Amino acid sequence: MAKKSSGATSGKGKDKGSGEEPATFTQALRAGEGFDLAALSPRATPGFDGDKADGEKAMEGLGDRLSELQERLYAESRGGGSRSVLLVIQGMDTSGKGGIMRHVVGSFDPQGVAITAFKAPSDEEKKHPFLWRIRNALPGPGDIGVFDRSHYEDVLIVRVHDLVPQSQWSRRYTQINDFEAKVVESGTTVVKVMLHISSDEQKARLAERLDRPDKHWKYNPGDLDERARWADYQEAYQVAIEKCSTDVAPWFVVPADRKWYARLAVTNLVLEHLEALDPQWPEADFDVEAEQRRLSLMP
Amino acid sequence: MAKKSSGATSGKGKDKGSGEEPATFTQALRAGEGFDLAALSPRATPGFDGDKADGEKAMEGLGDRLSELQERLYAESRGGGSRSVLLVIQGMDTSGKGGIMRHVVGSFDPQGVAITAFKAPSDEEKKHPFLWRIRNALPGPGDIGVFDRSHYEDVLIVRVHDLVPQSQWSRRYTQINDFEAKVVESGTTVVKVMLHISSDEQKARLAERLDRPDKHWKYNPGDLDERARWADYQEAYQVAIEKCSTDVAPWFVVPADRKWYARLAVTNLVLEHLEALDPQWPEADFDVEAEQRRLSLMP
Repeated sequence: MAKKSSGATSGKGKDKGSGEEPATFTQALRAGEGFDLAALSPRATPGFDGDKADGEKAMEGLGDRLSELQERLYAESRGGGSRSVLLVIQGMDTSGKGGIMRHVVGSFDPQGVAITAFKAPSDEEKKHPFLWRIRNALPGPGDIGVFDRSHYEDVLIVRVHDLVPQSQWSRRYTQINDFEAKVVESGTTVVKVMLHISSDEQKARLAERLDRPDKHWKYNPGDLDERARWADYQEAYQVAIEKCSTDVAPWFVVPADRKWYARLAVTNLVLEHLEALDPQWPEADFDVEAEQRRLSLMP
Repeated sequence: MAKKSSGATSGKGKDKGSGEEPATFTQALRAGEGFDLAALSPRATPGFDGDKADGEKAMEGLGDRLSELQERLYAESRGGGSRSVLLVIQGMDTSGKGGIMRHVVGSFDPQGVAITAFKAPSDEEKKHPFLWRIRNALPGPGDIGVFDRSHYEDVLIVRVHDLVPQSQWSRRYTQINDFEAKVVESGTTVVKVMLHISSDEQKARLAERLDRPDKHWKYNPGDLDERARWADYQEAYQVAIEKCSTDVAPWFVVPADRKWYARLAVTNLVLEHLEALDPQWPEADFDVEAEQRRLSLMP
């Protein structure tokens, strides 16, 4: 699957948006005013004018820049900086969250990364407000925190299954916006990504999990019960994105039927946000020449 | 620095130990009976008969095998398995611990990895026995835990500076052995690595940190005070390795003046231990055909 050409023929015009093409993934993928999830093709490649081979080539060039920017962010924090990045990944089952963790987050320096996978809340977590466990997992200074699912489950699965009364979940959109505004205010850049796949693509990916014994462990019969609520989930995503794509913490919706595109897009989203932060190497807080002399006198 | 050829000319004879060369890194690097740290050259390349270019080529072949074995270990735990791996990295300042984290640990799937960097203990940690914070950081089932420094600091820096009375630190070797035996008993494979550099190489690496503004943040004037205790640290390492290289949790001493070799060696150590574990994909705990039918009937 995902083998058909994107139809683009003009090659690897990644950086300079040619014609009406937006110049950055950040611009191309941001869910703005009047966003309509149903109108976005899961096979589209916004912000990128090329096919799979072009995409893989474009990925190669990103590692070194990402690596230096991440190290600068980390170094900045060692010099007293408090900035950090939080990457939130949401998406239906099989939308490729695990692949993003493995291939995109896996390309970052693991010393400055903390992944938190949010499952159904534990008994302990249920005793607290829904944002409690989220707050506890926010990235420290200089780090890139990554959420594999997030507080958005509290307005997605919780809404679809009415796990709490509507009067309760309906207030959460505002609570989330207030919470995220404070997180941003404290120095954390929040990058929220929805991996957007089609129902057909999910069917194919679930079939593959069932066909391959080395994928059985990823499958759970409950996955089909959730699949049966496809339309409800799409609606819940639409509402969450509509209500919570704010100026300070917008949503980015990444078409994800093509895995190579989703990985390229998320990598670039992180890269562009790091570039905007423009972290700097901290000044030495010691006398460099004095230390050089001390060292030179040692055996 | 570290540019001189290893003197080896026979090429990439990595897999089949030619002649008296040991067949695995595990065998070549294990600190056994009568181990003498001072007698091991930090520029040696035990278990590998080749130069830097050969080493980099050999690394390329390891990623896929590592990746599959790690995923199997993780999958096994989802099927109820309790096995895990703990990689302990120790070494003098500038010995390359950060590079191992970045380049070796960074090549693993981050979803199954947890790095813990042990700094000087916090006030809270000081209230507990020295192994308390270590126990709290042990890997969960299916994970690869990585310690950047470890409980060995409690018989290294603590011994060199007498941070606790000798009567106390001298008992810790036995306490460590007892602790590690229990960790192994519970299903965790412990791989303890000392990165062994020469004093000259440390001097060159510290000089580089002082010469380059983008490395100043890694430097601390206290590093030279520690360097002045070089011989004491070497002795403390010798004793720790002698006393704590046990059958169930041996030490591996990796010559580390050549960064490419150290990374190749640690990668292979982890790989060989995963191969020995031979983790298996778990059996499906559902009726595969029934699920395939259910899926095929869905829109």
